[in-house]
Amino acid sequence: MTAELITVGTEILMGNIVNTNAAYLSEMCARLGLDVYYETTVGDNEKRMYETIRTALDRSDIVILCGGLGPTQDDITRETTARVMDLALTEDRHTRKRIEKYFKTLRGKDYKITKNNWRQAMVPQGAIVLDNENGTAPGLIVEKKGKTAILLPGPPGELKPMFERQVVPYLEKKQSQAICSCMVKICGIGESMVETMIEDLISSQKNPTIAPYAKVGEVHLRVTACASEEKKAYRLIRPVVKELKKRFGRHIYTTDEKVTLEESLVAMMAKKKLTLTCAESCTGGAISARIVNVPGASDVLKQGLVTYSNKAKRHYLGVKKETLKSVGAVSRQTAYEMAKGGCRQTGTDACIAVTGIAGPSGGTKDKPVGLVYIGCCVNGHVKVTENHFSGNRAKIREQSVVSALTLLRSCVLKYS
Amino acid sequence: MTAELITVGTEILMGNIVNTNAAYLSEMCARLGLDVYYETTVGDNEKRMYETIRTALDRSDIVILCGGLGPTQDDITRETTARVMDLALTEDRHTRKRIEKYFKTLRGKDYKITKNNWRQAMVPQGAIVLDNENGTAPGLIVEKKGKTAILLPGPPGELKPMFERQVVPYLEKKQSQAICSCMVKICGIGESMVETMIEDLISSQKNPTIAPYAKVGEVHLRVTACASEEKKAYRLIRPVVKELKKRFGRHIYTTDEKVTLEESLVAMMAKKKLTLTCAESCTGGAISARIVNVPGASDVLKQGLVTYSNKAKRHYLGVKKETLKSVGAVSRQTAYEMAKGGCRQTGTDACIAVTGIAGPSGGTKDKPVGLVYIGCCVNGHVKVTENHFSGNRAKIREQSVVSALTLLRSCVLKYS
Repeated sequence: MTAELITVGTEILMGNIVNTNAAYLSEMCARLGLDVYYETTVGDNEKRMYETIRTALDRSDIVILCGGLGPTQDDITRETTARVMDLALTEDRHTRKRIEKYFKTLRGKDYKITKNNWRQAMVPQGAIVLDNENGTAPGLIVEKKGKTAILLPGPPGELKPMFERQVVPYLEKKQSQAICSCMVKICGIGESMVETMIEDLISSQKNPTIAPYAKVGEVHLRVTACASEEKKAYRLIRPVVKELKKRFGRHIYTTDEKVTLEESLVAMMAKKKLTLTCAESCTGGAISARIVNVPGASDVLKQGLVTYSNKAKRHYLGVKKETLKSVGAVSRQTAYEMAKGGCRQTGTDACIAVTGIAGPSGGTKDKPVGLVYIGCCVNGHVKVTENHFSGNRAKIREQSVVSALTLLRSCVLKYS
Repeated sequence: MTAELITVGTEILMGNIVNTNAAYLSEMCARLGLDVYYETTVGDNEKRMYETIRTALDRSDIVILCGGLGPTQDDITRETTARVMDLALTEDRHTRKRIEKYFKTLRGKDYKITKNNWRQAMVPQGAIVLDNENGTAPGLIVEKKGKTAILLPGPPGELKPMFERQVVPYLEKKQSQAICSCMVKICGIGESMVETMIEDLISSQKNPTIAPYAKVGEVHLRVTACASEEKKAYRLIRPVVKELKKRFGRHIYTTDEKVTLEESLVAMMAKKKLTLTCAESCTGGAISARIVNVPGASDVLKQGLVTYSNKAKRHYLGVKKETLKSVGAVSRQTAYEMAKGGCRQTGTDACIAVTGIAGPSGGTKDKPVGLVYIGCCVNGHVKVTENHFSGNRAKIREQSVVSALTLLRSCVLKYS
């Protein structure tokens, strides 16, 4: 089945915001086995929106629209879709009640709901109404003559839960086949290396398929299979995941869609009851900030020390004055002393330390921009890596963060 | 004039990457005074790409395509555009030489350039060739019968410099009028408050126009004017910017397009020779990481202390045991002691401190998720704010970071 996305919003056409909804919906469609051939963004203009929806419904089985369901006069996605599909709008009493309840709960019993808001209770005849748990605008599924339009609210916080809880089951039912997938997440091996290592699998693949997604410092492989029922699809996936595990071993940090690198790391360290200190120079706190992404990180992370000046490196981490003088702050020895001293001076079991030149200035012939040393100490064992990253300041720092998390993970696996 | 964007790439349709090029090009078009009514993403499929380009050239004056100019068989943007516009491809000798030089410099004299790469030297008859300083694929401007197709490489590192140095001057010349704009960046006032404060200006505006762009914790106002020549356009802009400065005063941190909040803050503190310590709990290092975004931040930031545990708050910042016991780590008093102690124990002139509950767990009735105290000490003066942020863990932390930078800025202005 083919699907097509239409994002509605002048703010996207103005470059005011990045269209992350399209990326989210595209990935969800890919996961559901739908072929997406077109994505269009159009503004809140009736004529242009009409043409766009009509063209999309002509050429695709399913058209997913997001945005333009709000209460103001600008919001015309609902009305325009109904017009394209030649369906009248009628009031949905259930939605009217839900909107009433929503406002009374949020704003108190005496709140007077404006007339505009009732427009959101108007739905095309015969539409399936999707309750919005995080806002007033309901989602809508409208079917006619073998074509389906799915209307979703624009705010990601409303769109995503609605899509996952209500649209996914609907689309799964629509598919004659069950489509299942599993995400194998790999760190510590570059994208081209990963692709080379599975070249044979990819070139001979039919069902399941393996699709690589490159992230900074990580590669995610999505294994997708289709079969007459879910159980059978998973049965097809299992041997492929097993083969990937055989090839990538400990470089696979999870096969759970939702788990991030920092989550798997914090969970692993919490399980082993290891405490952590981050000692950062050029990353400036980005490693500890990344670890604090994980709820409950406090079980593991005790402190982060952004030792940006040499004085701070000496004071907080006990890096030797002679080391800084003889080989400099960006050196293998300094990274070593930062990691070792981080554990010693704080009493934590582990310390991850980074020192490097993020640029744009500060580079020399011997120590060019992009040179980053990462030191890691776990239970007294220290490992230091020398890295040469490319790109601008932000890119170099981003790569440093992921490489540090990857090194910490491998040291925890080895030394605990 | 109307412009339309076409992004080429199956990886976008698969949700593999977010289409940031479209957001960038949209904003640039808005800045150039072009009306963008449609944005389409299409894959590397000849038939669908042909239809998409044809439709776009029918309805818009200028069509900007990005992606699909690479050397592989998948990359067909150049050939398909030439076919739609009915133009033959001919080899551009200048580009052939440039590609040759590019590879010899990068890979050494003996590198054998593959046949595929010469495809990138083929250009539609009469096209204006845009040199690529960061890759092999040239950009192309193709004009025919009053319509213009602009073909650009997909990688942002190639696209952006090419657009700014070569496409902007071309488009400016095309416009019968000069369009100039100025960005007024505001912090410390919410989006709706800003909009209320300029309602009268916006409702009566014609030339110049004011367009608000909401960022996390900031509002940017783009003032755009058009006139017969650049000088005259700027003359129109000036009184509006003056009026905005009158209304928003010190909340405006820059009128320079490229300057970020952290850059203006670091520059201001460097000028006043103030040194800084960051003392972070729930933000986990994100404030110092943001400050380290600025090249040369080391003149100001001496250290960051991510005091995630109570023990660390006491040890590094001297927060009193009784305080933590009686009012808890998330309290006005703790934020006060963190900020004050951060200066005292490190000897820096300023300290910005954050303690709060980012969730999803850890909230209570008295201290709900989203409660964040921010303390700031500058030259001995301490100010603490109590904030109630909404959204998920990431959103709460993001708002905390910007609010901290804003508070630090206002304290520096006041107490130094």
